[in-house]
Amino acid sequence: MLIVQKFGGSSVADAAKIERVANIIADTYRAGNEVVVVLSAQGDTTDDLIEKAHEINPAPSKRELDVLLSVGEQISVSLMAMQLEKMHLPAVSLTGWQVGLRTNSAYGAARIKSVSTERIRRELDKNRIVLVAGFQGVNKFDDVTTLGRGGSDTTAVAIAAVLNADKCQIYTDVDGIYTADPRKVAAAKKLDAITYDEMLELASLGSQVLHNRSVEMAKRYSVDLEVLSSYERKPGTKVKEVVKPVERMIISGVAKDANIARITVVGVPDAPGVAFKVFSVLGKAGINVDIILQSAGMGGTNDISFTVASADAETAKSILAEYAQSIGFDHVTVDTNVAKVSIVNAGMMNGPGTAVKMFEALSTAHINIQMISSSEIKLSVVISAQEADRAVSAIHDKFFEA
Amino acid sequence: MLIVQKFGGSSVADAAKIERVANIIADTYRAGNEVVVVLSAQGDTTDDLIEKAHEINPAPSKRELDVLLSVGEQISVSLMAMQLEKMHLPAVSLTGWQVGLRTNSAYGAARIKSVSTERIRRELDKNRIVLVAGFQGVNKFDDVTTLGRGGSDTTAVAIAAVLNADKCQIYTDVDGIYTADPRKVAAAKKLDAITYDEMLELASLGSQVLHNRSVEMAKRYSVDLEVLSSYERKPGTKVKEVVKPVERMIISGVAKDANIARITVVGVPDAPGVAFKVFSVLGKAGINVDIILQSAGMGGTNDISFTVASADAETAKSILAEYAQSIGFDHVTVDTNVAKVSIVNAGMMNGPGTAVKMFEALSTAHINIQMISSSEIKLSVVISAQEADRAVSAIHDKFFEA
Repeated sequence: MLIVQKFGGSSVADAAKIERVANIIADTYRAGNEVVVVLSAQGDTTDDLIEKAHEINPAPSKRELDVLLSVGEQISVSLMAMQLEKMHLPAVSLTGWQVGLRTNSAYGAARIKSVSTERIRRELDKNRIVLVAGFQGVNKFDDVTTLGRGGSDTTAVAIAAVLNADKCQIYTDVDGIYTADPRKVAAAKKLDAITYDEMLELASLGSQVLHNRSVEMAKRYSVDLEVLSSYERKPGTKVKEVVKPVERMIISGVAKDANIARITVVGVPDAPGVAFKVFSVLGKAGINVDIILQSAGMGGTNDISFTVASADAETAKSILAEYAQSIGFDHVTVDTNVAKVSIVNAGMMNGPGTAVKMFEALSTAHINIQMISSSEIKLSVVISAQEADRAVSAIHDKFFEA
Repeated sequence: MLIVQKFGGSSVADAAKIERVANIIADTYRAGNEVVVVLSAQGDTTDDLIEKAHEINPAPSKRELDVLLSVGEQISVSLMAMQLEKMHLPAVSLTGWQVGLRTNSAYGAARIKSVSTERIRRELDKNRIVLVAGFQGVNKFDDVTTLGRGGSDTTAVAIAAVLNADKCQIYTDVDGIYTADPRKVAAAKKLDAITYDEMLELASLGSQVLHNRSVEMAKRYSVDLEVLSSYERKPGTKVKEVVKPVERMIISGVAKDANIARITVVGVPDAPGVAFKVFSVLGKAGINVDIILQSAGMGGTNDISFTVASADAETAKSILAEYAQSIGFDHVTVDTNVAKVSIVNAGMMNGPGTAVKMFEALSTAHINIQMISSSEIKLSVVISAQEADRAVSAIHDKFFEA
């Protein structure tokens, strides 16, 4: 089998951890597999390099920052090669440009355009373990780019896709994907499997386990993905297109996103085209709007509420304020004291029972719902931020403790 | 003018030093010059990386060590670019592979085969200051190589050669080339100019100022080289093909090499071909022999003495011992308590006065000469190691204090 393995920065933070990871790689190789390993920068290396840069220039160009940051992964792969050499295993380290990982020119958040198989294939044919520096590539100018935080996941999936790998294993601090954050919900259960779409919803809802782009890419190229622990040798969670009923639980996960704000445009005229005007102004400013609720106000006017990322809240408010007169509304309020709690389940729309159960759980816990939104595979509520953790537990208990 | 400037690791060791070097670069650029800058790794970075490697593997492969070490210069050039950006100067950093610096595959001590002008020329045409990572290149496999300690000097000279630069300035801790080590000889004088050949002799005799290969390359391509201080703004020492008499002193320098050993093969038959046998045995073992002295011993036999690098002394002794019977000599002695003191002067053979003055200086100081060797531009003596520093001072005083 051809297996791509990815290990994060905390898994290779020091010599002892490098040795433990090398043992996982060695076992995979000795079992007769072809092995490509993608590594992140060690521990705090990336943060240390950013600090070094800021000491010299508080606002360095993104191009030069990428040149600097890319050394972190180069250090990791060369050290891992040395560790494997010590174990008498043939290994070779390769940087982003050496594996021909081509990206667009969005320095700091580049998108992968293509990966060449030629160099990696040649090294695999020599029976070598191939160690690839994650997170980095080169653009059409042959300049170094980085893929943004968590980009090594995407490197691993992209390489698995072009090599048509049998497996892509993402090793992390946790041993898989859980039905809720296991640090918050004691009863959280590990999933054996989850679909790409469910994983994408969970990731966009605040789950930190997998980089979103890596899941999108895995879905597009049907990469057999697995999230598992670099500390314990046991199966993790499979991410794939279709999950068999036997692997499925009632809901795949409960997630919380506290980084949102609720904006209310008060006193909007009850006339056609007004909502369009409000959202087109925000759209032009590049602000994404999530859940929208329009309610009847008094005296022939409406209130329009919507959620945005907290980081965008003040910008959204001041942009809208400029248009108060031309659109004809009264004023804008911002509430950052809110959170979104969601349940994700690819089969949700097959039965209405899920929504009923969720609302029942919140009602029993006396938690007030401010807004509701649903998609084919997810159901979200906006509630007070203080009640978010309690809501997650209540929903989780309702579905898993029954 | 097109100027190539090289700054060593201690000149860019921290943010304050980077700023000072940036000011030198900025002045050169603002004066209307095209500027290419070659940088070494910051301060102890290279040593720190080697330590990191040895923590994992005491004997890592040279290929992987080169992948690791090359990050040091990449960090330097990106940080310098950020500093210049802060000063509102256009700058771009480039690695060894980005400038197309091709080497052979001798990892850790690679030789430059070619440098492409295309990328650097394109950046200069955009009026950018071009910052090139020194010390590194890529071989025909597109694998990273390094040029060995001091290799950034060679990178700078190679780039100056291919770009046909008007000047190649090597900025260091010292402000030029001296007639003797200024830390040892108080009266040591800075030279305005020195020839490539004299510089090569001084470098091979233990002077630490310039990397030998860089001088060889400067001579081959007639690069206008200057060694100057990154701390003081004043002229340094020019290294060139012909030095005008007005720039020349009587001797260009006095140098000491304490890392030598004197080996004596005792009781060699006084017959043809014996010296050839002795030195061919050593040549096959890759041991370089420097000064040779053959003296008549007693009873129809001779003694052959020669110097080698101290590191080779024990190997030379044991190899020769194996051939004692077949060559027919008695035994071998090794004396590591010796040093070589040399004076270098391209015009030496034009007059015999130099040698006479040197021997007079040593005689007055009661220093016994064990061996003498001369070439077209240098005169060396082997003396007791304890007397070496005193010999350097005596010779220096004789020539410069008169």
